[in-house]
Formats: sequence, structure tokens, C-alpha cells
Amino acid sequence: MTKDVQVGIILGSDSDLKTMSKAVEILTKFEVPYFITVGSAHRSPERVIQLVRRAEAENWQIIIAAAGMAAHLAGVIAAHTTKPVIGVPMESSGLGGLDALLSTVQMPGGIPVATMGIGSAGAKNAALFAVEILALSDPALKQKMLDYRREQTESIEKKAVKVEAGD
Amino acid sequence: MTKDVQVGIILGSDSDLKTMSKAVEILTKFEVPYFITVGSAHRSPERVIQLVRRAEAENWQIIIAAAGMAAHLAGVIAAHTTKPVIGVPMESSGLGGLDALLSTVQMPGGIPVATMGIGSAGAKNAALFAVEILALSDPALKQKMLDYRREQTESIEKKAVKVEAGD
Amino acid sequence: MTKDVQVGIILGSDSDLKTMSKAVEILTKFEVPYFITVGSAHRSPERVIQLVRRAEAENWQIIIAAAGMAAHLAGVIAAHTTKPVIGVPMESSGLGGLDALLSTVQMPGGIPVATMGIGSAGAKNAALFAVEILALSDPALKQKMLDYRREQTESIEKKAVKVEAGD
Amino acid sequence: MTKDVQVGIILGSDSDLKTMSKAVEILTKFEVPYFITVGSAHRSPERVIQLVRRAEAENWQIIIAAAGMAAHLAGVIAAHTTKPVIGVPMESSGLGGLDALLSTVQMPGGIPVATMGIGSAGAKNAALFAVEILALSDPALKQKMLDYRREQTESIEKKAVKVEAGD
Amino acid sequence: MTKDVQVGIILGSDSDLKTMSKAVEILTKFEVPYFITVGSAHRSPERVIQLVRRAEAENWQIIIAAAGMAAHLAGVIAAHTTKPVIGVPMESSGLGGLDALLSTVQMPGGIPVATMGIGSAGAKNAALFAVEILALSDPALKQKMLDYRREQTESIEKKAVKVEAGD
Amino acid sequence: MTKDVQVGIILGSDSDLKTMSKAVEILTKFEVPYFITVGSAHRSPERVIQLVRRAEAENWQIIIAAAGMAAHLAGVIAAHTTKPVIGVPMESSGLGGLDALLSTVQMPGGIPVATMGIGSAGAKNAALFAVEILALSDPALKQKMLDYRREQTESIEKKAVKVEAGD
Amino acid sequence: MTKDVQVGIILGSDSDLKTMSKAVEILTKFEVPYFITVGSAHRSPERVIQLVRRAEAENWQIIIAAAGMAAHLAGVIAAHTTKPVIGVPMESSGLGGLDALLSTVQMPGGIPVATMGIGSAGAKNAALFAVEILALSDPALKQKMLDYRREQTESIEKKAVKVEAGD
Amino acid sequence: MTKDVQVGIILGSDSDLKTMSKAVEILTKFEVPYFITVGSAHRSPERVIQLVRRAEAENWQIIIAAAGMAAHLAGVIAAHTTKPVIGVPMESSGLGGLDALLSTVQMPGGIPVATMGIGSAGAKNAALFAVEILALSDPALKQKMLDYRREQTESIEKKAVKVEAGD
Repeated sequence: MTKDVQVGIILGSDSDLKTMSKAVEILTKFEVPYFITVGSAHRSPERVIQLVRRAEAENWQIIIAAAGMAAHLAGVIAAHTTKPVIGVPMESSGLGGLDALLSTVQMPGGIPVATMGIGSAGAKNAALFAVEILALSDPALKQKMLDYRREQTESIEKKAVKVEAGD
Repeated sequence: MTKDVQVGIILGSDSDLKTMSKAVEILTKFEVPYFITVGSAHRSPERVIQLVRRAEAENWQIIIAAAGMAAHLAGVIAAHTTKPVIGVPMESSGLGGLDALLSTVQMPGGIPVATMGIGSAGAKNAALFAVEILALSDPALKQKMLDYRREQTESIEKKAVKVEAGD
Repeated sequence: MTKDVQVGIILGSDSDLKTMSKAVEILTKFEVPYFITVGSAHRSPERVIQLVRRAEAENWQIIIAAAGMAAHLAGVIAAHTTKPVIGVPMESSGLGGLDALLSTVQMPGGIPVATMGIGSAGAKNAALFAVEILALSDPALKQKMLDYRREQTESIEKKAVKVEAGD
Repeated sequence: MTKDVQVGIILGSDSDLKTMSKAVEILTKFEVPYFITVGSAHRSPERVIQLVRRAEAENWQIIIAAAGMAAHLAGVIAAHTTKPVIGVPMESSGLGGLDALLSTVQMPGGIPVATMGIGSAGAKNAALFAVEILALSDPALKQKMLDYRREQTESIEKKAVKVEAGD
Repeated sequence: MTKDVQVGIILGSDSDLKTMSKAVEILTKFEVPYFITVGSAHRSPERVIQLVRRAEAENWQIIIAAAGMAAHLAGVIAAHTTKPVIGVPMESSGLGGLDALLSTVQMPGGIPVATMGIGSAGAKNAALFAVEILALSDPALKQKMLDYRREQTESIEKKAVKVEAGD
Repeated sequence: MTKDVQVGIILGSDSDLKTMSKAVEILTKFEVPYFITVGSAHRSPERVIQLVRRAEAENWQIIIAAAGMAAHLAGVIAAHTTKPVIGVPMESSGLGGLDALLSTVQMPGGIPVATMGIGSAGAKNAALFAVEILALSDPALKQKMLDYRREQTESIEKKAVKVEAGD
Repeated sequence: MTKDVQVGIILGSDSDLKTMSKAVEILTKFEVPYFITVGSAHRSPERVIQLVRRAEAENWQIIIAAAGMAAHLAGVIAAHTTKPVIGVPMESSGLGGLDALLSTVQMPGGIPVATMGIGSAGAKNAALFAVEILALSDPALKQKMLDYRREQTESIEKKAVKVEAGD
Repeated sequence: MTKDVQVGIILGSDSDLKTMSKAVEILTKFEVPYFITVGSAHRSPERVIQLVRRAEAENWQIIIAAAGMAAHLAGVIAAHTTKPVIGVPMESSGLGGLDALLSTVQMPGGIPVATMGIGSAGAKNAALFAVEILALSDPALKQKMLDYRREQTESIEKKAVKVEAGD
């Protein structure tokens, strides 16, 4: 599966896997080849740099990084590549993920990280945003995204019918 | 300048212009055609939708939205397009921009907004992130970005020399 | 039940239904005709605008909007109508609803949203506030509200008796 | 001016007057008779109750209460009346108004306070929301509000033209 | 038990009883006559004022007020008496009691509320602080407090022995 | 002035003097003998303990402690005395005093600190609260406090007249 | 075990023992002699000072202090010694440990406390940081630390293999 | 000056120099050889790694890292060395340094960063903490630190005399 990877997902810890499975579901649904692995900015910094080199060598298009607490992973990756890096703050402390959010989003001018919301909503949106980028040069993928949006809207409408009916 | 626009910048208020000039500087430096205008999600909602339609019609690639307080602009735009939307929270209250940050980044699963940091650092990074996306299919732009990064690094090194010398 | 609707309740997600049932209970108790449905500002934006149009066409008096996270729903509705809009922030993340509160209440000058507290207390108060508005031109409803308040006070007094007695 | 008052504005402190002048401007523009005074929930509690009695006797429709810090004013007023009470949190400490916001909005179930944003945006919106309520039974006022909204939108469009032109 | 009351405890809601039982335990231990009841600043405002009048008539020395969310109870009581008022913020929302803390402690200059920590630690300390005040003119009570402190210190030392021994 | 001291004020730093002058004004107005000095819990811990011993020896009734940042002063004093200790959090960092507030108020069960609001309002209220305690056994002081409250209320009423008159 | 102690661990409460067992595990693994006990800055202040004297007499090198809420323990210890003091904020309230973090880290200039993260991650890191200090003058310990780091990195790599394989 | 360096200070930006001059003053006062330079974890990541290598080669004992916003610098350095790393969060946004504090202190278990307070107090304490570590194996330095502490205490006492005298 590591051939033709378009999106790399790097988890700061394997404990982030459950939350980030929401991103995997989206990429699978959109048939976007992805590679998912673990690499801690703090506990395995060389590995993270090697993963970035692999991203360059294998021509990944986008990197999604998920980390909690003092979440440096997305920023460290962004410092080593000019590919778009998407950061997803994990909720892994009593602070509700505020620490991870600020650590991910408040990047200094010069090195951008595209930050998503905390936790599983952010995980899902990270993958959708990656698809939106890829869809810029892939009309078939854009069509899939339009379909996805339409289905999403229809799903709301179905729920609305149920709520209106008092079910 | 509205011909061949690649990046649209929409300000929730003209008072955001000074902060967002950091984004304009970057796009100008990278010679990326852009269009900048004002459109409030709350005070001119139809205009925002028309701007999104124009983005589709004129084939803008990316939309950057800047707003403060209950910053809904990026989310509203993202709800109407599948193009990548980048949100920049403005600092316009005593809460230091925390209100705008949370209003921009905490999107529900399904509609992503790529959020940057609060204020001028976020403004600069929004433009850099847009360039990174465009560079995926534009090798010349990628080279410019690599040069920019190298110059940025060299600038740090020059400052380091000064600090080391006690200047 | 959609005839003669006086209060429309729009949920950003059907998962908000349980919390907002507190609002439904109040409107039922006061015999205020209401309509409840689902409409996401992000995932079904056209539907939200259609619901506002329906509110105008059917002459709803007040709209209550409940949403969590980057809660844009009340603001988006308020942008499309001059009817009073009441926003209820839902608690749906590790931030305890602070994100939804700030996203709902920190509206820019020009488009007001009357914001209630986070969660079920806010849900109940949203309905009570709607009744207070309707009671301005409905003396019978005002009397009911005065009765409700008196009963509420008596309920406190009964609880006080129990606590004083050590029960 | 105290005859035929429709909106009463009560300030927790005369130091709130400057911020609340934004509310006065709106009521003046819409020709809504108002009465503005000072009454501290803590330093003049009887006066606040008397003001509520006066509101009942003179048949004010709506009460706007502005207070900072542990902002109890709106809640105390709401506890003594079933008229709609709108609370505006003032920014008067190093906490940026977060204290006043939470003290105003987090009302227990049973006594609603319609809370606006912190500071001058909230002041303006409090008056606009009061007008929206009054407009429910006053078609001329509703028309004025529609005109106000249209002018507001046009103002955005004019600013947009300037920004687009690089002025 | 309402004869010779020295400390009155007023709960904003009977749901605060469990947390405030920590205060009752302390007053019982120190044999300080107390009276505990319920009185909501918002849902039974007249009752609160009557309780303050009763405090004056029966010559209570100190009033402890416990409330959550937009916790106005202690402030409202303090506004009506010059007796020392001690406020205990309850944790009753997703904000962890921060709302109740700020609503209780951030009183404007002129009307003091002695604020304790959030929840059961604050409940216990409210009673201990009341005892400290009463002990100023009651040497026997002061001795009891000194004994209490000594026992408390010894309890720590016993726990230390256990931890040191690895139990 | 150190003879017959009834209230001791201890500042964590001489930079707190300006803010705490609000407390001095109140004690002077009420003719309560006080002693004010500096003693840092961190930089002069023995001095703080000696000040507490002096308070015991000279029979001070109440101790007011003012400190900023990780404000331990009130807690350290309270740990060494059973006299009532009042803490005033100073605003001395970019966090607006939230650090000092939490460091002062969140005391563990067993050692109470009566916490006032952040900054000058808290300083004033600390002195007023001390007077309220002293007034429990001093009818003349109680009368002064009643007079103070009445004047305070009248001051509000005078300001109300001005605001009502549009001055 | 109290002979040759190199690291003293002082818990503000025996309830902190479970969290701080993470520190004990690390010191045990690195064969660093330690002493663990309980001493509350508020409830047993003399004991804390005696523990510091013992640290001096027995020549402990480093003191780790763990406390929650208004966590003064590390600061109080640091005020009485020039040995390195490491503070670990405990999560023991609805504020998620933010109170303990600010109370520990925001020390005034002059008395440093080396603060770790909230809870068990901080507990582990406190011990690791103590080992890093000791390793400055103990090459064997430094080698152990290098080995620990390598194993930690390898552990990440093993988890990465599992995640990559979809296990 | 780079010979025999014992403490290396790395600034994330040259704009941090003014704040960190407090650290330089302390090291100069204690005659501890230091090296100060600039190295951004994001804008010059290789340089940061080279600085860590230089620290190993030249046998620096301790590294102090100062950074603002999403302050990753200390964490990145700590990931590459087992020397003690001290982090100082800078205040460089409307969030008052809370972003930098959480980004520095909330390190995952395994890689410790000793975090100081936000801004200049933290800068001063970082240097003092470094001296405390060095003093463990340098009795002369320990004596200097004891003298420093004594002078600091005397300075408080002098200020106390002035405040007591009403100067």
C-alpha cells in the first residue's frame, strides 16, 4: 500500500490510532492511497525526519500529523518540508485538548500548519481537506467530493424528517 | 487583477486589512494572482455566497477567509464550496482572539477549515500554505518556496551572528 | 403541528435533541405551537436558508438555534432574518462548551443573537425567553408565566423545608 | 423622555456609559423611546428592584442591563420580572470580560437572560435585538429594521469596492 | 436548631447539599450552631432577602452561600447585609466551576464576598473560615481550632509514615 | 502605629503597594489601626513566619495578603495561623491575574483563604471585609459600615440622576 | 533506603501517590536512591521545612514536589533551599490541573521551580529530569539514559510497524 | 567566550533577546560562562540540531530555550539531548503567553523540559535554576547562590522598612 501514496498520516503515539481511524475511513472511501505510521517528534525525532524524507522520495502530496499535549509533531514536520502539512490536535489531558490545539495552531510566521479541530471531528476533516487539495487537479475526485457533500446534506435532511416526526 | 485569480482573500471586515496585508505581501512575493475583497458572513451573507460562486466560475484554487470574534466566515464559505478554505482568526476583542480561533477551528466533521494562528503570523502562514498547495502542481513555485525557506533560514543565521556578537 | 407555529427550533445535529427536549417541554407546557427540525449551517446551508424563508412565510415569531463546537447556526440564521434569534451553545467537546458559547455569543455589531447558557439550562431558558417575548402581546401567556414563576419559587421553598428538616 | 418608554437601559456603573452609548445610538436611530439610568445590583439593590417595579408600572417592554466583573445585574433584574431581559457583559478587568460574560450567560434553568457579546459590539446588538422584538408587533419598525440591514449590507459592499481597488 | 444560630448556610439549589455537607460536618464538629436552607437568588429572590432579614433578626454572625454557574447568590446576599458573607462556587457545568468561581469572586469594589475554592474543598474551608472568625471572640473555639489544626498535621504525618513504608 | 494593630497587610512585593492603597484608604476611613509591610513567601519565607508570630504576639485580628503570579503568600500565612486570612490576587502578568486568582483561591480543604477579586476592586473589598469581621463585636464600627453602605448607595443614585439627565 | 538518598519526592497528599508512582518507577529503573514521603505546605508547613533540612543534612541532590489545586508545595520548598526543585502539578479539580500548573510554574523572579506537565506524564518526566541532572556528573548514569532513550525510540518504531501493518 | 561554555541559551527569535537579558544578567553575576544565540525550531531546524551537537561536543552542561506561541524549541532540543533542558515561554500574542506555556510544559512522558514562568520572571529563574544545578558539584557556586538568596531576602526587608515607614 506504500506505493503511490498520496497522503501520509503520522501519529505521535499509537494511542491516537482510534481517533485517527476517522481519517482513514475517509481516505478509504475516496480511494486515496495513504500510508499510516507512528513517529514521535520527541521520542523518535530522527524517525520523523526520515519519514519526511520518505515523503519527498515517494512523492506523497500531503502529510497529516496527529498529536496531543505539547503537540509539536505537525510543526516539526512542516519545518522540514514544503508539502502541505495538516495538524490534528488530540484530546489527551484534563485540558480538553486546548494544549494540543494551541501547540499546533499558533505557529510562527514562516512555517504554516493547517490545523483542524480537536479529536475525531478534526481527524475526519483532516482527511476531507486533503481530498479537497488533491481534487484541485483531479476532476474525478472533485466529483466524488461533490457527491459526498450531497449525501451528507441528504443525511441531515433524513434526520430532520425523523426529528420533525417526533421519532 | 481579477483575471486568473488563484487565491481569493475575503475579509470579514475592512478593519482586518492591515493584519491581512501580511498575506498579500507573500502572494505578491510569490507572484501568485490573488483577489482581495470584503464580505461579512453576518452582515452580507448573500455577498459571501456570490463570492463563492465567483470563485467557482473564475476557477480560484483556494480561498482565505479572515474574521474576528464569532468568526463564522471561513466556515460559511467552506459550507458552500469543496475548494480548500483557509481560516485566519483575527484578534479583535479582550479575549485575545481565542473566540475567533475556536469559532474557526472547531468545525464539525464533514466541512473542513484549515486554520492558521491568530493575527499577523496566521495571515502570513495562510498565504504560505496556499502557495504550498499551488506548488504541488507547479514545480517553479515549489522552487520559489524552497528558496524562500532557505532565505528564511539564512535570515535566522544572520540574526544569530548578531546576537552571538552581542550586537 | 406546523400550522400557526410561533417558535421554530433548529438543531445543528440530531444529537442535540436530548438536550433541547428541555425547550420542547417548556413550549408544550405553555401551549406555544412550535416546530422542531434539524438543519446544519455547515452540512446543509441551503436547508437552513430555506427554513428561514419558511419561518418568514409561515410567520414564525422566534427562532431558537442549538449547535455545538464552532456553533455558527444561530449566527447564520440571524444573518438572514430580522426575527429574534436565540442561540443555545451545546456541550460537545472536551472544552466544556466554551467553544460553542464564544462562537454563538461573540457576534459582530449589526446582527444580534440572544445567547443562553451552555447545555440543558440554556435549552430550558431559550424556551422561557421565547415565551417572555410572546407574552408581551399575549396577556394570557403572561399570566401563565407569572404562575410558572410562582410555582418555581414554591418548589424552591418546598425543597428548603426538606433541607431545613434534614431530609 | 420617561413617558412611553419601550426599552429601559440599566448600567451597573456610570463608567459603562461610553460603551453603552452604542445601544443609545441604535434606539435613537430607530426612534424607540428609551430610558437610561444607573443601578448597581450590589451597591444599590433596592434601587434595582424599584427600577423593575417602575418598568412594570410604566409598561416598559424590554430591559437591557450592562455590567462588568461578577456581572449579576441582568440576572437580578430577570429574577424580578417576566419581561425580556438582555444582558451585556462589560470588559472591565484583565480577564477581557470573560468574567462578566460567564456571570451573565450561565443562568440556571428557570430565569433566562438573553446575553450579547462583550463590550461595544454587544451594546449595539442589545439595542438591535430589542428592536427586533418590538418589530414583531410593529410593521413600521420591522420595515426600518429591514432598511437598516440593507444599508448595513451596502456599507459592506462599499468597503469591499475600496479594498478591491486597493484604497 | 434555629435558635442561637451563628452560621447560616444558604444553598442556591438542593442539589448543592451533598457538596456542602462538608461544611455541615465541620460546624457540627466545632459545635457551632448553624441553620441550613435553600434560597435561589434567581428563582426565589424575595426568599433570599427574607433570609437575610432573618439573619439580622436572629443575629446570625456569618452567612455561607453556595451556588453554581452564574453564581449570584453570595453577591446578592452581601448586597443586603454587612455581615461577613462567604461564597462557595459549585461545580455544575462542563466549565469545571470556573463560571461559578468568577461569578462569585469578581465582586465590584464596595461589596465584598469572601470566596473559597470550587466544590467540596471550598465547602469545608468555608466552615473553617467561619469558625476562625467566631474564634476571634471565643477563646474556647480558638483552642478547638488549634487542636483541629494539630490533628490535621498529625494525620499528614501518619500518612507520611505509611507512604515512607511503602504501604 | 504598630500598637493595637487590628489588621495586618502583607504585600508579596512593594510593587503591589499602589493597588493595595485602596485597602489602606478604607481602613483609614474606618479608623481601623493597621500595619502594612512587605514579605515574600518565596524570597523571604522566614520573614513571613516572623510576621505571623508578630501578629499572634500583638494580637492582630485579621491578615490581608496580596500577591501576584503563583501567589502563595496568603496560603503560606494561613498555614501558620488560625486568624482569618484574606487573599488579594494581583494582576502582574499577561494572564490578567488568573494565575494569582487560582493560586490564592484553590486552597486544599483544611486551610481556608478568603479570596477577593483581582486587583484594586479586590484590595478595597479585602479591607471592607476585614471591617465587617471587626464590626461583629464593635457596634460603632457596624454603624459606620451601615453609613458607608448608605453613602455608597446614594452615590449610585447621584450618578443615576446625571446619566438620566444626559450629563 | 533513606541512606544516600539522591532524589526526595514529597507529595502534598497521599492521594497523589498513584500518579507519582510513575516517578518512582523511573528512579527504580535507573537505580537512583530515592526517598518518598508526604508533606503538605498548608496542613503541615513545619514538616515541609524539616524535610528540607533533612534534605540538606542527608545531602539529597534534587527534590521533586507534587501537589494539586493551589499547588504551593514546590514553591515553598524552593524558598527554603538552593537545591534544584522540580514541581509536578496534579490534576485534582474540575479545572483539569490548570490551577496546579499556574500555581507551580508562575514563580516570581528569584526562586525557580522547574515545572513538568500535569499528571502522570509530568510525574515520569520529573524523575527523568532528575536523572539527567545526576547524569551530568555520573557517566554510567548518562549511558543508562542514552540506553533508555534508544529503547524508547525503538518502542516507537515497533508500534509503528504494528500500525503500518494494520494490527 | 564560547570556550568552556556551561550554559547555552537558544532564542527562538532575536525578538526574545530583551526578555532573556534577565537570564544573561544572572549568569554574568554568577560568572557562569554562557553562549547565547538564535535558532528557530521551525525556521532553522537543522541549525537547532547542530547547536545541540555543538553542546555535546563542547560539553555544555545545560541548555536554556526561549520561545513564544507554539513554542516547540525546548521540546525539540530535549528530543536530541539528554542534557537538562530548561524552557522559558515568551509572551508574544494576545493569549498572554498561555500558548507558549502549554506548548513548552505539556511534554509527553519520556522527554522532560523543565519549564519556567512566562516572560522575564521565567527568564531570570531559568538562569538561577541552571546555577542551582551547576552548584551541585561546585561548592563555591553554591556559596554564591546562598549569598544571592540572602541579599535577595535583605532587599525585601529594606523594601519592607520603606513601606512600613510610608515612603
